[in-house]
Amino acid sequence: MEATVLASAPARCPVTRRSLPLSQVYRLLEPGPVVLLTTAGPKRPDVMAMSWHTMMEFEPPLVGCVISGRSLTSSLLKEARECVINVPTVALARQVVGCGNVSGRRVDKFKAFGLTPVAASRVGAPLIEECHANLECRVADTSLVEAYDFFILEVVKAWVRPSRRRPRTIHHQGRGAFMVAGEVVRLRSGMK
Amino acid sequence: MEATVLASAPARCPVTRRSLPLSQVYRLLEPGPVVLLTTAGPKRPDVMAMSWHTMMEFEPPLVGCVISGRSLTSSLLKEARECVINVPTVALARQVVGCGNVSGRRVDKFKAFGLTPVAASRVGAPLIEECHANLECRVADTSLVEAYDFFILEVVKAWVRPSRRRPRTIHHQGRGAFMVAGEVVRLRSGMK
Repeated sequence: MEATVLASAPARCPVTRRSLPLSQVYRLLEPGPVVLLTTAGPKRPDVMAMSWHTMMEFEPPLVGCVISGRSLTSSLLKEARECVINVPTVALARQVVGCGNVSGRRVDKFKAFGLTPVAASRVGAPLIEECHANLECRVADTSLVEAYDFFILEVVKAWVRPSRRRPRTIHHQGRGAFMVAGEVVRLRSGMK
Repeated sequence: MEATVLASAPARCPVTRRSLPLSQVYRLLEPGPVVLLTTAGPKRPDVMAMSWHTMMEFEPPLVGCVISGRSLTSSLLKEARECVINVPTVALARQVVGCGNVSGRRVDKFKAFGLTPVAASRVGAPLIEECHANLECRVADTSLVEAYDFFILEVVKAWVRPSRRRPRTIHHQGRGAFMVAGEVVRLRSGMK
């Protein structure tokens, strides 16, 4: 990656973050959290909020997601073909809504919302330091981008904060309402 | 629809269920609940548990979802090109896990798990009476079925139980663990 893609000098991946086996990525995304998608850009990195995503394969993990063709993220992603899916918790709810309400064409969202870009290991887009998990991705398939703005991403490296066993992820319900992850129930299951 | 597709005589849509405007469907699926997908069949209807789904368009609502090519649901859906996405709450968690652990080729899952099939209004597949919401769907695009088992469905009619304002939906975290929908936080947002 080029050093110029980050607005501020990126730190190395901090020790508070551990590598997550790629086979476990589905356990982060299946419950449907709002995520923050980061992309590198010629001037500065960008970030957008996203709820329209789904797992498509366990390993290597594939994630399908809808990214509006009008967004800056879409044009940066088509160019660089790399991004990071960051999973925030409720502590970042205000920033998530902020990222969803302005365009990176006008605003440096990292600065505006106090988010810290951290250098990723495999892609040019930055991790967001404040997020619970970070999934470094490469674009794997663009065959449905023209018809549906639907990108298929392959997760090539995953990070998670081991300190938070039950992250209070947020789940968009529309019109500024977010459901916060509640209790966990466990049932005997042969499912993965 | 043919009367023979239902194992037991279907009731009409009950008064406890109201029609939901199609423009509001995204508010049910964006938070990432496990859903039960029902299909009609030559002998009896089938039902499977599904977490790999995403909204793809607001209106008409499009839903993308991954359905294993090995499943009975996949072959029934390719044949009938109609299904219902049913949204259960935690009260049905045991049945959801049950539906995910056996094949409809061997078992009548409606009978086995005490689920009640109710006639839909626009498609041959049944609604599940016990679920919080029911989305009648037609297959809209199969171009990624061969490569990824990925179907794009169009929701043509939506039902919801008005009695439950905050349904305690369940969100799969793998290995029999489900996060139950918690509190709702509201923030000022210009997002839909």
